[in-house]
Amino acid sequence: MGLVVQKFGGTSVKDADRIKHVAQIITDTYKKGNSVVVVLSAQGDTTDDLIDKAREINPNGSKREMDMLLSTGEQISIALCAMAIEKLGYPVISLTGWQAGFKTSSAYSDARIKKIDPERIQAELDRKNIVIVAGFQGLNKYDDVTTLGRGGSDTSAVALAAAFHADLCQIYTDVDGVFTADPRIVSEAQKLDEITYDEMLELATLGAQVLHNRSVELAKRYNVNLEVVSSFSGKPGTKVREVVKLEKTNVSGIAKDQNIARLALVGLRDEPGVAFKVFSLLAKNKVNVDIILQSIGRDETKDISFTVSRTCLETAEKILNEHREAIGFKNIMVSDKIAKISIVGAGMVNNPGVAATMFEALSDAGINIQMISTSEIKVSVLIDEKDAVRAVQVIHGKFFNGEK
Amino acid sequence: MGLVVQKFGGTSVKDADRIKHVAQIITDTYKKGNSVVVVLSAQGDTTDDLIDKAREINPNGSKREMDMLLSTGEQISIALCAMAIEKLGYPVISLTGWQAGFKTSSAYSDARIKKIDPERIQAELDRKNIVIVAGFQGLNKYDDVTTLGRGGSDTSAVALAAAFHADLCQIYTDVDGVFTADPRIVSEAQKLDEITYDEMLELATLGAQVLHNRSVELAKRYNVNLEVVSSFSGKPGTKVREVVKLEKTNVSGIAKDQNIARLALVGLRDEPGVAFKVFSLLAKNKVNVDIILQSIGRDETKDISFTVSRTCLETAEKILNEHREAIGFKNIMVSDKIAKISIVGAGMVNNPGVAATMFEALSDAGINIQMISTSEIKVSVLIDEKDAVRAVQVIHGKFFNGEK
Repeated sequence: MGLVVQKFGGTSVKDADRIKHVAQIITDTYKKGNSVVVVLSAQGDTTDDLIDKAREINPNGSKREMDMLLSTGEQISIALCAMAIEKLGYPVISLTGWQAGFKTSSAYSDARIKKIDPERIQAELDRKNIVIVAGFQGLNKYDDVTTLGRGGSDTSAVALAAAFHADLCQIYTDVDGVFTADPRIVSEAQKLDEITYDEMLELATLGAQVLHNRSVELAKRYNVNLEVVSSFSGKPGTKVREVVKLEKTNVSGIAKDQNIARLALVGLRDEPGVAFKVFSLLAKNKVNVDIILQSIGRDETKDISFTVSRTCLETAEKILNEHREAIGFKNIMVSDKIAKISIVGAGMVNNPGVAATMFEALSDAGINIQMISTSEIKVSVLIDEKDAVRAVQVIHGKFFNGEK
Repeated sequence: MGLVVQKFGGTSVKDADRIKHVAQIITDTYKKGNSVVVVLSAQGDTTDDLIDKAREINPNGSKREMDMLLSTGEQISIALCAMAIEKLGYPVISLTGWQAGFKTSSAYSDARIKKIDPERIQAELDRKNIVIVAGFQGLNKYDDVTTLGRGGSDTSAVALAAAFHADLCQIYTDVDGVFTADPRIVSEAQKLDEITYDEMLELATLGAQVLHNRSVELAKRYNVNLEVVSSFSGKPGTKVREVVKLEKTNVSGIAKDQNIARLALVGLRDEPGVAFKVFSLLAKNKVNVDIILQSIGRDETKDISFTVSRTCLETAEKILNEHREAIGFKNIMVSDKIAKISIVGAGMVNNPGVAATMFEALSDAGINIQMISTSEIKVSVLIDEKDAVRAVQVIHGKFFNGEK
């Protein structure tokens, strides 16, 4: 018995039947004596439908008005879900982001949660109401509605769990939990019972789409007891915690990210400050750079390769070309036909053989590695996009089955 | 040059093309140097779609959650319209009901506007923004979203015009203005250039669906300069004012109301207090009574007939039957196969021949009158529903063409 925050995504509330099912999960939790705060996303295709409506009128509508428009999606979900719970005979109230006290930065379409005024939710919990909150949205200092951008609803849920010191924050999805690899690619993929924040963070960042990294970062910072669980199967999910049991395997999971592109600046002058020029310029233009690799200088020039998300590729290329003189490079080589495959595991840093095992699996399969990047708990390689699925399969086979 | 409030209904914003057209009307007004505040309804079928969604989940969802749900409809309209205006290159901002300062009573689904906090709208007008406000909605003292019930968006517009002392409040509809009769029934129906508040009020109450009576009452109380105008034709509409030109005809218009049912309590004791018992009971149960007719007592009993809206008929009959003993009547006779036909005109009170002319027209057409009710500016008759259209035609012919 305690306070439980539950978050349901768009698929889980996509139609009347799913909403009724979600209402059942919520009231089952409430019946056990828990206080329950629920965070919902917009129904299935609602957001896309609203975006289509806007595009038809103005493909370049301001972000402020887009947020005004899109925030209706979650408002529809919370009202419908509250009615489903009323039908089951439990006390319930729905709250928009601003009613729930979400105060955000001013950046429309990509706002950050600054704080949650707890008064309204606390008052509703004191009245024994189940509280259904619109995720993904808040209010900025101008009293205007903002949305939180990608992963927003997960972040809303974790922020609420942190603000109200919830005993548990359950993220309901359409999968059974976090897996050692994408089960659609690797049939032998195993569900993990537990995973650390850092591992989850790497997996989230690396393209395992179970949880967005913003929400995991927040959970880590406030030590929120997270659980990824299926809204369909009813099976136990994956717990995300600070420390997990010791006897765990070195590698927790394998992730594949195809939203990635590589740029290489060829023929840079081999002198100090070049990397600074390149990456400060990109940062100023909001291009996030992931892996960076700099060759050893020869003939007084050097090359720098790095990866960005595919959506940023065009911007990055344009900016760099505009500053070709100032930076001083011969030419840019670009590829978006690549994929990043990563293995993640907290035990990795103490076990140098892990990276070698990964490389061996790829070598045995005849897959060429273009770039390598490592951190304390992960090893990432860049390979040709066409080899991506096979790479996940052979690496998974190596680590989890002892054979390909 | 001044402050203009413009209201566009659901048909006027039903799709992208209509919204672009509305944006043109708004910016044309702004270009002339006016400050412009716009009130919008939900797009075409949005409200019905949302109601369907709710019914599928819970046919008896609370009104609070219905308001939470339905208020998204106008929010979608205002965001889309603001984007259409952005496309035309004008400064614009959309505001929900609560952002626009609408404070209402607590009654969900049928709230009354208590006041409008002017700060936000005034600030946006000072910044030279076109302000697009979600009609039909506000916030109650619990900080919960309310909707205003029928005619709500018209009322939002008139309330804004009153609060900001607007020079003009234009209600855009899909008709050219207020007509002497419904043009779909009477092909010779003429558009009125001007009409008084009281006449408009009678016409609105009597079922001419151009303006809701709540909005006209408010306009009269605050002397708001109202205009009913077509969003399609671009022609001058009908001005609603306190005083209109003197040479006007006695009869301004003819209205037909078929949302009406008649109850007759037969065999009531002919003693004081009977009518009080009947109508206080109905009022307590929120049944609005329209025309009341009491027969002269004979044989120590009397009859009372009255009309209610058809939606209230079942409730009214049930309540009266439950209190048959206390009220003391023999039986109830009920009919919902009736219609109310009314003529409205400010000059009527000084011209006793007007009612007679109406009765003559009906008599010539062989249409039987079941009940008659008169006020200073109107005469209403109850007739068989099947005669309703013909009645409007013959009465209109009599007054406006001098022949049938």
